[in-house]
Amino acid sequence: MSDAYIPTPRTRLVREPQRAVYDRAAAYKILDEGFVCHVGFLVDGQPFVIPTSYGRRDDTLYIHGSSASRMLRNLDKGIPVCVTVTLIDGLVLARSIFNHSMNYRSVVVLGTAVAVTDPAEKLAALKLLSEHIIPGRWAESRQPNEQELKATTALRLPITEFSAKVREGGVIDDEEDYAFPTWAGVIPLTTIPGTPIDDERLMPGQAVPGYAKSYTRKRS
Amino acid sequence: MSDAYIPTPRTRLVREPQRAVYDRAAAYKILDEGFVCHVGFLVDGQPFVIPTSYGRRDDTLYIHGSSASRMLRNLDKGIPVCVTVTLIDGLVLARSIFNHSMNYRSVVVLGTAVAVTDPAEKLAALKLLSEHIIPGRWAESRQPNEQELKATTALRLPITEFSAKVREGGVIDDEEDYAFPTWAGVIPLTTIPGTPIDDERLMPGQAVPGYAKSYTRKRS
Repeated sequence: MSDAYIPTPRTRLVREPQRAVYDRAAAYKILDEGFVCHVGFLVDGQPFVIPTSYGRRDDTLYIHGSSASRMLRNLDKGIPVCVTVTLIDGLVLARSIFNHSMNYRSVVVLGTAVAVTDPAEKLAALKLLSEHIIPGRWAESRQPNEQELKATTALRLPITEFSAKVREGGVIDDEEDYAFPTWAGVIPLTTIPGTPIDDERLMPGQAVPGYAKSYTRKRS
Repeated sequence: MSDAYIPTPRTRLVREPQRAVYDRAAAYKILDEGFVCHVGFLVDGQPFVIPTSYGRRDDTLYIHGSSASRMLRNLDKGIPVCVTVTLIDGLVLARSIFNHSMNYRSVVVLGTAVAVTDPAEKLAALKLLSEHIIPGRWAESRQPNEQELKATTALRLPITEFSAKVREGGVIDDEEDYAFPTWAGVIPLTTIPGTPIDDERLMPGQAVPGYAKSYTRKRS
């Protein structure tokens, strides 16, 4: 596993260590399938957790900053953050309450986020964010102007210290519980895109593009 | 709006304040539809964000602690946390990149979480967590024994200081962009339960129960 990485004491999994996936490629697959992260940061001693969008290029995570403006006050120096991406795949109904679980895939990235200030890098980061969510959309949209670029913040976070965790498969009950008379199994959960809804003021002749009609989070 | 609440400086929305929902009932509807929260807490100056399950009773949030054991080290005194629940409803494709958005509903609760130590309250909290995720399942499962109860941690967090945020509906473009020749609209996103998968060691005659066959997050 040339792609394996060594966890730090902060990212070594404490709970359910058998679910740890110390493999960069596996972690990136989770990051690439998700599109909403939860960013944790500190303001006056109080932790805040804010959902926002993100994108990845190589070993760097770019985070959309506009919905996390509390975070941005002291950003010039960089701020310690935790970025967590969680995909929920199902509910695991064991025979015992204690062994109930969820199937999920999650990645936790720790580090210091800094604002992207260089205009060219910021534009590239916004394109990355956009293409991460809807590949193909950037080229068909009205591009950001200077004022909009200034009003948007993108953060850069190196994917250096991180952990990934995966729980998949079926029920694991204690041996003596298999005789307990109840149903057991998994309820799969999937996030499904619906039929795209045209904007009311759509210009004539603007058909739903393929990237909206066949929207998917699956990445090759 | 008798149910309205007054935000504190920490929970007053800074970004997109028009999306704020300062109504307790509306916030509770979001909390009741979700079942995974992201808990933010601090360890040695570093924020951590961990996904875990939760349940609500009246104005109290109970959080499942087992997947957040780093958090639990100093829990006797109570620890400052931020609990965020986010439901993603769709992608909003505007004509300009800048006005692209997501439809979502989120709640942020700030406060001090304490461990539930009283055995009766802990059992009640675990039942609440279970019924929050799958109503009806608790009674049909093998109940927790003393050892399992000890191995599980539930946290209690009063829903006192919180904010809710909702973005719904269609595209909002700048007036001059409506002539830009591209498709615009919303891609709805829904989390759908699939057909339940029987455990391989299911006892004969154990049919899929209604709460699994017709699983839904909709709450009345």
